[in-house]
Amino acid sequence: MGDAPTTKVDLATLTPDLTTFLGKSAYLQLAIFENLSRVVRTAPSTEAKSALSKVAGLALVKHQGLVAEIERHGEDPAAIMEPFVDEIDGFQRITEGNDWFESVTSCYLTAGLLDDFLVRLAAGLPGAAGDRIVAILEADSGEAIVVAELLTAIESNPRLGARLAMWGRRLVGDTMLLARWTLRPSDNHDSDEARIEPVFTELIAAHTRRMDALGLTA
Amino acid sequence: MGDAPTTKVDLATLTPDLTTFLGKSAYLQLAIFENLSRVVRTAPSTEAKSALSKVAGLALVKHQGLVAEIERHGEDPAAIMEPFVDEIDGFQRITEGNDWFESVTSCYLTAGLLDDFLVRLAAGLPGAAGDRIVAILEADSGEAIVVAELLTAIESNPRLGARLAMWGRRLVGDTMLLARWTLRPSDNHDSDEARIEPVFTELIAAHTRRMDALGLTA
Repeated sequence: MGDAPTTKVDLATLTPDLTTFLGKSAYLQLAIFENLSRVVRTAPSTEAKSALSKVAGLALVKHQGLVAEIERHGEDPAAIMEPFVDEIDGFQRITEGNDWFESVTSCYLTAGLLDDFLVRLAAGLPGAAGDRIVAILEADSGEAIVVAELLTAIESNPRLGARLAMWGRRLVGDTMLLARWTLRPSDNHDSDEARIEPVFTELIAAHTRRMDALGLTA
Repeated sequence: MGDAPTTKVDLATLTPDLTTFLGKSAYLQLAIFENLSRVVRTAPSTEAKSALSKVAGLALVKHQGLVAEIERHGEDPAAIMEPFVDEIDGFQRITEGNDWFESVTSCYLTAGLLDDFLVRLAAGLPGAAGDRIVAILEADSGEAIVVAELLTAIESNPRLGARLAMWGRRLVGDTMLLARWTLRPSDNHDSDEARIEPVFTELIAAHTRRMDALGLTA
């Protein structure tokens, strides 16, 4: 990234209006919660089940915080989320994974990247609402718990590690596309790309750190 | 029950030791959360999905409160819950229902009855821990939200109502059996039955009120 550090402000012109932002991010957190609650139900041990239920609870807290923000503005949460259901459900389907470990890896990597991105995008939202939304999205998402669950399995099974490394590479593309979809459409594509690129470079660096934490190569 | 009102104290001699109580009730709340999170995932509308996610969150709060209580006593939650997993998973399988409406009805009726029962049983737990556990279990479980989701569907579809009424009758038997399973084993069956009977009569009365709230005959 050289000598030009990216700041949150860079992305502000691409932040959608408050209602769209809330609708997309609230339904996305609900989808993240659903993915996590699925891995809770299918967890291979009581320990994993209870640990991951904490993580599911943290995603639910984010969803509920955003829903409360929608209600604060006098809007109906379901109606505000509805236009974005198909896109996010589609993303959920292609990223859900073929077994429990892939599903947990998806929860970790997609939620991590999208939370990072939405926090940056939320910095462009106006006033006190913007500050509240940043605080909701920045809150702990339980990554340390997920890493602990995955790490033991990966360390004792190199083939699982190789498979999850490949799965992680596939996920990052689909997740970047969904991140792009949350941006405000604009006419000036060249200028947009110039703003987006350094942010995406940061997101990839954070993704690489998440993979490192599992002992995997991004 | 005539002139002898049942008080919480009646059941105290059948309350299991603290560790057993916490293990059973913590895993049970986790199972209730899982059932609710499944109906969130399969909800027929975004409105239902978001509303029921609140209810799932309330069950998760109960689970987490009980887990915190286990940790407070220096124990490992997963190890404390483990001995009760098979019984509760078995209960979950037979009560999960054949479609979304049956599943939601199960969440409402089984969690309602079991929470009622566990609150009474927790009154027999010693000291401040007992008080804290009663408070956790007595907390709102979102019944009003579940009733609102079911009522509209039942009112517009009498056949659904008839089917759910039958389903509710079947659930109550299985749920009473699980409630019994949470009791401390004892040698004096006659005396136990004399204590249990009025409590179960109260639980059935509360069950009947829950069915009434849906416009269904218990």
